[in-house]
Amino acid sequence: MISTTAIEHLKEKLGAQNVLYEKEDLLVLGYDSTPGVHHLPEVVVYPTSTEQVLAAMEIAQREGLPIVPRGSGTGLSGGSVPVQGGMVICLTRMNRILEIDEENLTATVEAGVVTLDLFNAVAAKGLFYPPDPGSQKISTLGGNVMENAGGLRGLKYGVTRDYVMALKCVLPDGSILTTGGKSVKDVAGYNFKDLLCGSEGTLGIITEITVKLIPPPKDKRTFLAYFNDMRTAGEAVSKIIAAKIIPSTMEIMDKATINCVEDYVKIGLPRQMAALLLIEVDGHPAMVAEEAEAVEKILREVNAAEVHVAKTAEEAASLAAARRTALSALARVSPTTLLEDATVPRSRLADTFDEIERLTEKYQLKVGTFGHAGDGNLHPTVLCDERNADEMQRAHAFYNELYEKVLAWGGTVSGEHGIGLAKKEYLARQIGPGGVAVMKRIKQSFDPKGLLNPGKIFDEGDPCSKPHVEEGFRVSH
Amino acid sequence: MISTTAIEHLKEKLGAQNVLYEKEDLLVLGYDSTPGVHHLPEVVVYPTSTEQVLAAMEIAQREGLPIVPRGSGTGLSGGSVPVQGGMVICLTRMNRILEIDEENLTATVEAGVVTLDLFNAVAAKGLFYPPDPGSQKISTLGGNVMENAGGLRGLKYGVTRDYVMALKCVLPDGSILTTGGKSVKDVAGYNFKDLLCGSEGTLGIITEITVKLIPPPKDKRTFLAYFNDMRTAGEAVSKIIAAKIIPSTMEIMDKATINCVEDYVKIGLPRQMAALLLIEVDGHPAMVAEEAEAVEKILREVNAAEVHVAKTAEEAASLAAARRTALSALARVSPTTLLEDATVPRSRLADTFDEIERLTEKYQLKVGTFGHAGDGNLHPTVLCDERNADEMQRAHAFYNELYEKVLAWGGTVSGEHGIGLAKKEYLARQIGPGGVAVMKRIKQSFDPKGLLNPGKIFDEGDPCSKPHVEEGFRVSH
Repeated sequence: MISTTAIEHLKEKLGAQNVLYEKEDLLVLGYDSTPGVHHLPEVVVYPTSTEQVLAAMEIAQREGLPIVPRGSGTGLSGGSVPVQGGMVICLTRMNRILEIDEENLTATVEAGVVTLDLFNAVAAKGLFYPPDPGSQKISTLGGNVMENAGGLRGLKYGVTRDYVMALKCVLPDGSILTTGGKSVKDVAGYNFKDLLCGSEGTLGIITEITVKLIPPPKDKRTFLAYFNDMRTAGEAVSKIIAAKIIPSTMEIMDKATINCVEDYVKIGLPRQMAALLLIEVDGHPAMVAEEAEAVEKILREVNAAEVHVAKTAEEAASLAAARRTALSALARVSPTTLLEDATVPRSRLADTFDEIERLTEKYQLKVGTFGHAGDGNLHPTVLCDERNADEMQRAHAFYNELYEKVLAWGGTVSGEHGIGLAKKEYLARQIGPGGVAVMKRIKQSFDPKGLLNPGKIFDEGDPCSKPHVEEGFRVSH
Repeated sequence: MISTTAIEHLKEKLGAQNVLYEKEDLLVLGYDSTPGVHHLPEVVVYPTSTEQVLAAMEIAQREGLPIVPRGSGTGLSGGSVPVQGGMVICLTRMNRILEIDEENLTATVEAGVVTLDLFNAVAAKGLFYPPDPGSQKISTLGGNVMENAGGLRGLKYGVTRDYVMALKCVLPDGSILTTGGKSVKDVAGYNFKDLLCGSEGTLGIITEITVKLIPPPKDKRTFLAYFNDMRTAGEAVSKIIAAKIIPSTMEIMDKATINCVEDYVKIGLPRQMAALLLIEVDGHPAMVAEEAEAVEKILREVNAAEVHVAKTAEEAASLAAARRTALSALARVSPTTLLEDATVPRSRLADTFDEIERLTEKYQLKVGTFGHAGDGNLHPTVLCDERNADEMQRAHAFYNELYEKVLAWGGTVSGEHGIGLAKKEYLARQIGPGGVAVMKRIKQSFDPKGLLNPGKIFDEGDPCSKPHVEEGFRVSH
């Protein structure tokens, strides 16, 4: 239990309005966007500066409290759920864009800046910040960095890590680490920046981020292609890449997802189709024209049932927006939505679709699959009800068997959502006990007391390997 | 001293032809391409497989021998000099290209494959491996990864790290770590891959590497622009970037370098010019045409003394090749060549040129400056004689003062050459004692006995902070 003295200290350092500790205030900070895992913190603080983060860190360390950093809570692996209680440090009030440097093509932001706000701010200056996770309207840059978020443009433009140039980070030992800078090349010492990126809040709390910006593409073309089966869609993706065309976006939805999205946004998607690919090529107009032609040719060669080219920028935007609703659309139809994040080398895409189909039948589940086909990054989503124990067991068996194949094919258990709580049991299977051992030693070297985001990523020998689920909570979609 | 039993074990495990321990055989393995640092190892092994690397690692650990991994020894910060003696593990016989996967656009190589050999092998299949360190004709991929090597195309295409997808690595604890894969997105656990990349052989020995390949640019245009002063050349670079044009190459040479290169390669560079920029734009032909026009316009606007467009691919290639000779060309004119690797945010480029000029005068030195102007990554090179103690002291003071400014401007003490032995004293100035402390804890978590490449990167409290220089050695250029 946190002491009243500690609460007083926090109020003193952060201001009373930035410290919450009454149960009714804590309720909404007990979960993120991952179903089935939630736990009340003891106190939530909203720092407005790096120094305040440091002060909160010091008080928590003194009290021996678990410390869980979070942004908007859009995480999909439970990374910001305070499963051991303690202190949540919520960075959403550190939301200033500190600088857009047009000479060096960089932007520096506080960790709580919303992804889309940064995108819009730099776009207003004719620049481009490419990473666009599905939740960009509410997700924060700090969360994006901690999870190394991907997005719809990852295929051509890469993920969050590819744009992080510098980080300011409060470490558990009470120091402030600044790593990287505006120099585009830097090999001075170990690469903390890329280690912190994707560390899921277990090594330090990021408070400031400098990202790289690029010139925006001058033109783009958006296609929708429909298919009578998923395998053909997968083959189309492979053929486009093999033709040395790297579209900015190559997204897939299966029949279940098409129908849920159509129910939700009503833009006239054909409900009878087995698969849909949303493809966008961008760049110089001449290149776009050539690539668009080549993509269309490939789509016709593999016998896509229908190819539709967006006629206006508005139409293209509405198609992309429709794709972004996929998770919410699926989540509407069942009490529980189990979303996975299997990623395979692109050449295994068609095989993975087959496997998902086989397992869906074998385990008699309702599954909607969508995702970043061009990256081999799929989100097979089981639509179920967590009150149905038998169904939950079948869902678990489904993922278990799927991941076995994914790993055998050289894939990964998480392409962009992180390990958090949700994937701990799979991690050792992927990186082996030796890999986990090195990770634990690194964790230990940053956080010897193990107070920072405890119970995340690591499973084995961890007292908090099973999430504590409190009665009376339910994640609503 | 290594025991005869250990030598026998090594011969048994690696084959007698792959184990050298006679002094005359060891002589050439006592240095890399960094002047002034050299030390004899006790034994050198040439493993031909990951298992042999592991066997050598185990024997060295049992004997308590320092272990220094190396490739071709083109490093410029002393990273592969066995300053504490012990065992050198030379990976040049692990030189097989294991796979070029055209479906997934990846290549998998052993660590000893020469950079240019990989470039040529993938080019033969219509693919492109962009990183091109100056030493690409002899440097190995393993060395490139360990130092996170840059190159002439870094501006547009990034550095080695941006292409590393997976690594196989022998750790000091005798385990083999495989990290990453052919999936283009992977967030399962801490990012070892990017931590190992640039770790300068201090955390593990990389034996296999999977790199990302991309489609090659369809067209390119090469320019030479001459200037009457360095500052204007720096301004041209900033203006080109600010115009949202990202050339693939933007290289600079000052007057001293132009003259040394002209002496060396005799291609008619105008000796009276104060600065030269080598600029290359590439991509789709239509984009190249537009960007080339825009670049030319900027060059004329800033009053470049002369702008020359390469008329043929051969001419373009010979200009790039001439730039690649810069270091060798400078090294011919004096007994000792002290090469530095200062990197600043691009907006500080012109200031940095001014500062180099001021310090050259102040310390009465002969300095040739060249480098990757587009990256803000410069190689101010002092041409001196290490037998002249006074001159060496002035050279030291020159760099000392230069780095003070570079750091104040948000730059880095190493853009691409690494810390190794040469930069240890500067590292703490850049990342602070807190940063060094975290680095040491990470080092400890990988290598608790401290046997792997000891004496590198870290200075403070390190028994080997001063390189041991043996009499009778001299680095020849």
